[in-house]
Amino acid sequence: MGKNLTTRAEDYSKWYNELVVKADLAENSGVRGCMVIKPYGYAIWEKMQAELDRMFKETGHQNAYFPLFVPKSMFEAEEKNAEGFAKECAIVTHYRLKNDPDRPGKLMVDPNAKLEEELIVRPTSEAIIWSTYKGWVQSYRDLPLLINQWANVVRWEMRTRLFLRTAEFLWQEGHTAHATKAEAVEESEKMMHVYAEFAENFMAIPVVKGVKTETERFAGAEETYCIEALMQDGKALQAGTSHFLGQNFAKAFDVKFANAEGKQEHVWGTSWGVSTRLMGALVMTHSDDQGLVLPPSLAPIQVVIVPIYKTDDQLAAIRAEVNVLTAALRKLNVSVKFDDRTTQKPGFKFAEWELKGVPVRIAVGPKDLENGTFEVARRDTLSKEVVSKTGIEIYITDLLVQIQKDLFDKALNYRNNHITEVNSFDEFKQVLDTKGGFVSAHWDGTAATEEKIKDLTKATIRCIPLDRVEEAGSCVFTGGESVGRVLFAKAY
Amino acid sequence: MGKNLTTRAEDYSKWYNELVVKADLAENSGVRGCMVIKPYGYAIWEKMQAELDRMFKETGHQNAYFPLFVPKSMFEAEEKNAEGFAKECAIVTHYRLKNDPDRPGKLMVDPNAKLEEELIVRPTSEAIIWSTYKGWVQSYRDLPLLINQWANVVRWEMRTRLFLRTAEFLWQEGHTAHATKAEAVEESEKMMHVYAEFAENFMAIPVVKGVKTETERFAGAEETYCIEALMQDGKALQAGTSHFLGQNFAKAFDVKFANAEGKQEHVWGTSWGVSTRLMGALVMTHSDDQGLVLPPSLAPIQVVIVPIYKTDDQLAAIRAEVNVLTAALRKLNVSVKFDDRTTQKPGFKFAEWELKGVPVRIAVGPKDLENGTFEVARRDTLSKEVVSKTGIEIYITDLLVQIQKDLFDKALNYRNNHITEVNSFDEFKQVLDTKGGFVSAHWDGTAATEEKIKDLTKATIRCIPLDRVEEAGSCVFTGGESVGRVLFAKAY
Repeated sequence: MGKNLTTRAEDYSKWYNELVVKADLAENSGVRGCMVIKPYGYAIWEKMQAELDRMFKETGHQNAYFPLFVPKSMFEAEEKNAEGFAKECAIVTHYRLKNDPDRPGKLMVDPNAKLEEELIVRPTSEAIIWSTYKGWVQSYRDLPLLINQWANVVRWEMRTRLFLRTAEFLWQEGHTAHATKAEAVEESEKMMHVYAEFAENFMAIPVVKGVKTETERFAGAEETYCIEALMQDGKALQAGTSHFLGQNFAKAFDVKFANAEGKQEHVWGTSWGVSTRLMGALVMTHSDDQGLVLPPSLAPIQVVIVPIYKTDDQLAAIRAEVNVLTAALRKLNVSVKFDDRTTQKPGFKFAEWELKGVPVRIAVGPKDLENGTFEVARRDTLSKEVVSKTGIEIYITDLLVQIQKDLFDKALNYRNNHITEVNSFDEFKQVLDTKGGFVSAHWDGTAATEEKIKDLTKATIRCIPLDRVEEAGSCVFTGGESVGRVLFAKAY
Repeated sequence: MGKNLTTRAEDYSKWYNELVVKADLAENSGVRGCMVIKPYGYAIWEKMQAELDRMFKETGHQNAYFPLFVPKSMFEAEEKNAEGFAKECAIVTHYRLKNDPDRPGKLMVDPNAKLEEELIVRPTSEAIIWSTYKGWVQSYRDLPLLINQWANVVRWEMRTRLFLRTAEFLWQEGHTAHATKAEAVEESEKMMHVYAEFAENFMAIPVVKGVKTETERFAGAEETYCIEALMQDGKALQAGTSHFLGQNFAKAFDVKFANAEGKQEHVWGTSWGVSTRLMGALVMTHSDDQGLVLPPSLAPIQVVIVPIYKTDDQLAAIRAEVNVLTAALRKLNVSVKFDDRTTQKPGFKFAEWELKGVPVRIAVGPKDLENGTFEVARRDTLSKEVVSKTGIEIYITDLLVQIQKDLFDKALNYRNNHITEVNSFDEFKQVLDTKGGFVSAHWDGTAATEEKIKDLTKATIRCIPLDRVEEAGSCVFTGGESVGRVLFAKAY
């Protein structure tokens, strides 16, 4: 298996694009900006979905499904909330194809099948969901509504990259409605914490929790909570957002309830989502020049076993030994693959499973059979060890836990080394240009300064960290008053 | 909870429409022909998905995801296969909205943002998937491809009904590619059997396995296998199909492989799918005039417990007893809900859970506490029994198994009583008009006869049953030669 993978040092962006394709995660399709998620990539996404879904249900949410299409007039209702959003979107105008009379064998849009009202392919579902909630909420007893949807959405992006920015992508979107402001704020904060826990414990990706500035906030939200991760090239990636919507959508769609005193009030809303973009974050956080590195929690195959043999008898003897091991591992819920392909040599297999990021590789040959051992290799450190077969299944499960932890610690260490406090704009630019990562700086709190800094450096305020120290300071750009540092970075 | 449900005898169709809405399964949305699947309905769909997904994976399939959109030119490539299909579909022609300069606050489609090529919202994914497979298959070693997709699809239906026929619906579509015809035929048959097993064992819906006539076959298929169920109004419902595609799509999209001798051949294909239509089949097979009846395998709540009390002390004593029972049941993987709402009376709760089809209802009052008993009611038979609390969890799990079996047996009995052999066209019409169900009749094998019968009676050939007896006979309509009976019925 010739990898021929561009290295990260050569061209990080090219490395990413190649790796996603070569590791069989996804590929571009014949449809502009839309990707095909291949089985290996989709298996990872399924694991993410299962874990998130479990967490959502544990926190009281239920799944539902709302229409793919949003009539144009519904967008108009929320337009004042969603100004600047959702303008670039796929629009359905007709509902029939017919044979083209002038070009035999070709099809044309039937001009007689024009929709009375255009339908927008959902870029997000606030409009359709809030217009539905209107019918579901009469009294405070109907609240809260705690609903999540797994769906595809479409945003007409001009420049697309697999997983990171595609015209169609898969995501989940939670949409909740509450009787009080306090409860809605609590919900939006809770879901930010759920996302952070998921990213850190399951994906081994450390994140900063914070709130967005007004400029970076979701259109229609009163507060946007976010989790921000740092990629190996020093650029930040927004990994999930949770919005406190105030009563904005309730007002746009006239969703009211009778409170305990019988008085009509608008409900309070939240929405929150993560998407297949997380696949991009996963790749860029852990992988290396040999290919993918997957945390054991997300690896479709956690352990691959490669036999080393010359004769059929040797293979048969190895197979007998491997069957015992795979049975023991499967009992412990470890997913194992025995790669007994006869068409490929061990070296090829080693390279292929490295490329695909399988956390643990076990090799076994005649020598091992004699000695009662296996050779165990870690994908993350590329280190090897010879391990006695007695109790090896416990060794392996412990090792998987250790790898999960080490990946997180390594990423955390990198991230912590890439949060740099700066106190002048020169320093700010220098850190951004040389070291990258998050630049922690005082800011005067104005959108004007934010924009100027962005124009000059391409860095945006990724978030105002929740755990920041409140301290008086001077804005790194204008010298104006500041009450605490915020995190700037170039971002995906 | 006033049910006010139309009875089946009064108006079966109205009964269905009302029940789906009142039981909180789904509702019509503000988007023409598109439904909202509500949390209770979606929870049932999720159980179907989980079981099917498990069965697909057990038979070697993997999930993947392909684009929502299909460029018009791709449809042209398969047009000769799909003649007559996919003409009524949602067509994206533009990619941007803008503010309407003439109508403040309103949006319009930006005429400058017209797509070069129109995109069709997938009505099914053969085109996009086979155009992708072209890049995935070079040699026989790349085969078989055994891939499934969970997705939404859109068909511009003029008359829609919740679950049974909607413009957008959810489904799974399997698309496989094989090196030999025999393997592809085996796959399409295997998936029909998987569907039948799922319908019968999990949904408690008996089905007839068979093949479609050429007229009823999927456009582009060489054989369509199907499972056909019978609803309580005597109409048939196609519950799943599995198509042997021959080399048709491989030829349309030029998908070839080098066989073991290095010779280029076109691959052989199958596709198979079931959809949210199964939700309609579920409702119409088991439910009654009191509301839904759910098989325990599919019930989001399997057991509901309703306390009967006058004082808070009584409720506290009941709660203590119920906590023991719910813990014991949950340990046995039974999903239990304790309905301790103080805002509703027991009679209201009974009616509500009957409407929602919860298989087992337990009521418990002060008298039960004294006697160490619970009152256990079955939703399917509406029968009640007083059961000692000792070992009641085993009684309940046994009861759930029994209910699952009884529902299937009842439906099977009904179905078997509604397969009627007829030997004249008068008899044919009479059975259709009075008794309904499947009419088993000889047919001369021609599309012309099939069409005439359809015109005269609205009955179509649902399938040529796999297990039919091969016997010489005379066509019920023309008197022409027949080699065995086929099943006619009016159908959804």
